[in-house]
Amino acid sequence: MTNKLLAEVFGTFWLVLGGCGSAVLAAGVADVGIGWAGVSLAFGLTVLTMAYAVGHISGGHFNPAVSLGLMVAGRFDSKLLLPYWAAQVIGAVLAALVLYIIVSGGAGFTGVGGFASNGYGEASPQGYSMMSGLVTEVVLTAFFLIIILGATSKGAPAGFAPIAIGLGLTLIHLVSIPVTNTSVNPARSTGVALFADGPALAQLWLFWVAPLIGGALGAILWKVIAGDDAD
Amino acid sequence: MTNKLLAEVFGTFWLVLGGCGSAVLAAGVADVGIGWAGVSLAFGLTVLTMAYAVGHISGGHFNPAVSLGLMVAGRFDSKLLLPYWAAQVIGAVLAALVLYIIVSGGAGFTGVGGFASNGYGEASPQGYSMMSGLVTEVVLTAFFLIIILGATSKGAPAGFAPIAIGLGLTLIHLVSIPVTNTSVNPARSTGVALFADGPALAQLWLFWVAPLIGGALGAILWKVIAGDDAD
Amino acid sequence: MTNKLLAEVFGTFWLVLGGCGSAVLAAGVADVGIGWAGVSLAFGLTVLTMAYAVGHISGGHFNPAVSLGLMVAGRFDSKLLLPYWAAQVIGAVLAALVLYIIVSGGAGFTGVGGFASNGYGEASPQGYSMMSGLVTEVVLTAFFLIIILGATSKGAPAGFAPIAIGLGLTLIHLVSIPVTNTSVNPARSTGVALFADGPALAQLWLFWVAPLIGGALGAILWKVIAGDDAD
Amino acid sequence: MTNKLLAEVFGTFWLVLGGCGSAVLAAGVADVGIGWAGVSLAFGLTVLTMAYAVGHISGGHFNPAVSLGLMVAGRFDSKLLLPYWAAQVIGAVLAALVLYIIVSGGAGFTGVGGFASNGYGEASPQGYSMMSGLVTEVVLTAFFLIIILGATSKGAPAGFAPIAIGLGLTLIHLVSIPVTNTSVNPARSTGVALFADGPALAQLWLFWVAPLIGGALGAILWKVIAGDDAD
Repeated sequence: MTNKLLAEVFGTFWLVLGGCGSAVLAAGVADVGIGWAGVSLAFGLTVLTMAYAVGHISGGHFNPAVSLGLMVAGRFDSKLLLPYWAAQVIGAVLAALVLYIIVSGGAGFTGVGGFASNGYGEASPQGYSMMSGLVTEVVLTAFFLIIILGATSKGAPAGFAPIAIGLGLTLIHLVSIPVTNTSVNPARSTGVALFADGPALAQLWLFWVAPLIGGALGAILWKVIAGDDAD
Repeated sequence: MTNKLLAEVFGTFWLVLGGCGSAVLAAGVADVGIGWAGVSLAFGLTVLTMAYAVGHISGGHFNPAVSLGLMVAGRFDSKLLLPYWAAQVIGAVLAALVLYIIVSGGAGFTGVGGFASNGYGEASPQGYSMMSGLVTEVVLTAFFLIIILGATSKGAPAGFAPIAIGLGLTLIHLVSIPVTNTSVNPARSTGVALFADGPALAQLWLFWVAPLIGGALGAILWKVIAGDDAD
Repeated sequence: MTNKLLAEVFGTFWLVLGGCGSAVLAAGVADVGIGWAGVSLAFGLTVLTMAYAVGHISGGHFNPAVSLGLMVAGRFDSKLLLPYWAAQVIGAVLAALVLYIIVSGGAGFTGVGGFASNGYGEASPQGYSMMSGLVTEVVLTAFFLIIILGATSKGAPAGFAPIAIGLGLTLIHLVSIPVTNTSVNPARSTGVALFADGPALAQLWLFWVAPLIGGALGAILWKVIAGDDAD
Repeated sequence: MTNKLLAEVFGTFWLVLGGCGSAVLAAGVADVGIGWAGVSLAFGLTVLTMAYAVGHISGGHFNPAVSLGLMVAGRFDSKLLLPYWAAQVIGAVLAALVLYIIVSGGAGFTGVGGFASNGYGEASPQGYSMMSGLVTEVVLTAFFLIIILGATSKGAPAGFAPIAIGLGLTLIHLVSIPVTNTSVNPARSTGVALFADGPALAQLWLFWVAPLIGGALGAILWKVIAGDDAD
């Protein structure tokens, strides 16, 4: 079990360092910055790369909502749920710490600002309401689980799941960065919220509740869609 | 058959929520917005992801023109055509409804505007004529079917078709968003047209006629190109 | 042989319609335009998609320099070289014609301008000299052939070659659009030069000479690099 | 051994010509330039394409830190380390020379400027400190090795490693171009530093030290994470 948990620590570390790191460091630079499309690609590639690298060790969840959804779908041992959640949060916090160290060496550094944290209302990148954020996070996490469960089911071609899942996370970011800065992952939200200025910690509850509901919902929807082919 | 239809409902839902959602929410944001390249990527990734997830259940059409083309090519049972079309339109309308709910929670919301609907003439993103739109939609849908039929034929390497087909849809959008906002999919056009301001509903006929002609034409062209290797 | 030639006609048609089409229609639109990165992606995806769709029929060259390089490497029958070249040029010209029809329906259309043609000196997008253009086209075409020959050799994993080759063409465009607008493909250059305003036809010779030299050079380099593993 | 070394020369040549070439020629062009996202994609695609083309010949390192990490992990013969390093540096320098020739033919050419070299402090693209640069390069190179060792281990699906590794390099650039212009590769840094204006040569030590430490660290971390599944 140690190897599984280490794989989840390092995988979630990479998700936060790569995804949130690209957002904090590179998104908003004038003229040549990577913008939200670049950030979307970065988040997806963290999962694509680590799913190929350590997916065969831990399953490559890197996300408490994914672990929950896989458990609901009967693909993940419930005794491992809390250890996985702990490993994912630890990895995310460590990555946020390393990112903080890098960012604090920037020219004229005065604070991390939002630090790629998630938010709604005044803390939404484009001012979307809590209800918009809730719907967005629930629905997108549900579809993330449908993609994960479908692409790793016996009927799908072997080996391609990390591409589908990673680029699925890219797609989710392309849609929802303006709404909530995109969580669909409570560990990712927690890691940067601990360091962010503003209401990130106060709003963190939503980015546990909504993705977890969405993860479980996605697992149930998948069982309905796939029927006898669900495994 | 229920599982097939559910897969088409959810797959087309995802196509519209992801593709049109990225366009409505994220394309035009100043400085960091994803632009038409990001929207093109989003549309393609909806199909790539869902084709891996549920393609082995329904075939992964998510598009009435694709279902028609596959039928013309002898790869799809004609008795399923109308049920598939219904499922695709239902999925698209539901996605547009969910997108409407999210968008209506935006700061200072006053209306959805074009809502990523398709159009020609005054409703074309860059003012292209009805004839330009018609040629564009017919030709691009025809090539979409050639890609689909070719990449899933016996001669092509197994497992890669969702990559070719999904990124083929990305390519189609990279070319034609300026002309018609890119349909090549009557269900996608219908879903958002029901909610859009402007002439989207009045122009909807073209985004059924042209993709369906293109889909059938592509199937015929594929049979000519491939000859004995068409299946 | 008819099926092979038809596959080359349609594949090269798609390369020019998709690649040059995205450049002419979508690259330079203010704020949301796809820019040169989007055009680079489009060119690469034309080859990725068609190589999966019809690569098993014709080999998926879509480019006279590729056909020549494959012949030099001993992988392509020299009797087919001229028929392939003819098919590729026909496909490219037909695509340029269709693109012309679409573009001419644009609001306030007054002419196609450069029409995504290739050029050097005053006709280079960023004013690079003929010598810069020549070096760029020779070297990049040579590496394109190394990628093609390597990714389709017996030692490489099966099925992935269209990804490597298509995204290799994307990479080539990311580097060289500023220099020559990127040819590495005489058929692509010829198709649009026939319709373009400016010196495209007068400069067309370079976009036959340099890619053909590069294609042959790449084949020779590949044989040197790979030695006994060249096939 | 000659074929292995030739493969490393050409592969590293391509990495520098494609990656640094896209940065120098295309990144900063107004309106249609490819920006840092395009450069990130270009660097990744150099490795993706050459890993498919010549990976079966040399292993496809193209990077002294990768060769060192693979040696530390017990996957690469230590007798080949210095010859590989020499081949990689030769390829990088030759590519920088070819790029210099192309660039010097630009309109109004007066000097190459930074020439896509790596730097910290005043030479960092966004003014990050030496400590930020050191942490960034060590951590990102370590994860690059984890991806490489994981994606090529026996537990990972065969054939996909070049996708994971190439797109992993894209991801690394999406995060760290603002900090150091992204090295993680001493050969790449050396090639362009020889031609660059400014402090590139004086700062080159860091882009050998940090990636090599990161490469060795990544190999050790991988052995810890993977345990009995490390090979």
